[in-house]
Amino acid sequence: MLKEVSVEEAWRRKYPERTVLVVSVDREGRPNIITLGWNMPTSGNPPMVAISIGHGRYSHKLISETREFVVAFPSEGMEDAIMFCGTRSGRDVDKFKATGLTPVKAKYVKPPLIGEATVNMECRVVASLDTGDHTIFVGEILTAYVSEEDKPVLFNMGNNVFKGFKCW
Amino acid sequence: MLKEVSVEEAWRRKYPERTVLVVSVDREGRPNIITLGWNMPTSGNPPMVAISIGHGRYSHKLISETREFVVAFPSEGMEDAIMFCGTRSGRDVDKFKATGLTPVKAKYVKPPLIGEATVNMECRVVASLDTGDHTIFVGEILTAYVSEEDKPVLFNMGNNVFKGFKCW
Repeated sequence: MLKEVSVEEAWRRKYPERTVLVVSVDREGRPNIITLGWNMPTSGNPPMVAISIGHGRYSHKLISETREFVVAFPSEGMEDAIMFCGTRSGRDVDKFKATGLTPVKAKYVKPPLIGEATVNMECRVVASLDTGDHTIFVGEILTAYVSEEDKPVLFNMGNNVFKGFKCW
Repeated sequence: MLKEVSVEEAWRRKYPERTVLVVSVDREGRPNIITLGWNMPTSGNPPMVAISIGHGRYSHKLISETREFVVAFPSEGMEDAIMFCGTRSGRDVDKFKATGLTPVKAKYVKPPLIGEATVNMECRVVASLDTGDHTIFVGEILTAYVSEEDKPVLFNMGNNVFKGFKCW
């Protein structure tokens, strides 16, 4: 039997959720990082990824202006950085400095890669779409990286409890 | 150290992936089901979900025409239905009949709910966006259901191996 519930109650069953760190830059090249749970692949050829960002977020402004971003999959050990980048605004703080994460020069885009992340993807925005209180930014993936360490990737198990998975 | 790899190689690190069954109907009301790994929430207020469907898929045609769909989270025991709905075309087969899944009348939309699924969400398309070889359909979530049984939800662990999680 099915029981009608609030949408929030239904979404509680969506975990584990792939959580990504998205790096962008302002017009002067200063980088910022946001934590996002709402992301998905959206094309195989050419490869593309879609991310949803809330209208008021600083990263929404940066990506709208500079049209590039890096998607990184956080590795075990990055729990504090995930929480920091998901709760603080880049308007007030330099998140690379505050978290101690290592910016690594990218090949095609201005936002840096995250040295500690298991996966990094360089993306250029090819389309965007407003959806309620968020915007979907679609990025063509120009190239990708994995870390030599290749640590388990962290997933949100609900209530911001993170767990590492290594399914590859 | 980061190592440049193909995008496919990087995506191997994306699992566990939330896999959903999406129900749609043709103009005569005949239902179809497709299995989709590419999905995400995309608005909190009003609640919305985004799904990516390949251009050639039968469900792409149905949702383009009738603009409604149901998103269901499969429960433990639905492994065969997930594989069937992900590999066969609704042009050739009635997937409710073939899988034995139970269609349940929805409240606001024509596509039926899936009686065995842990979560069902009724959605109306409010926007869509072409992205390479797929289209993102954005659905406003009109209402949602959980099953009384509330079984673990199946996630793709890679290579179509499915595992149940109960994080709520």
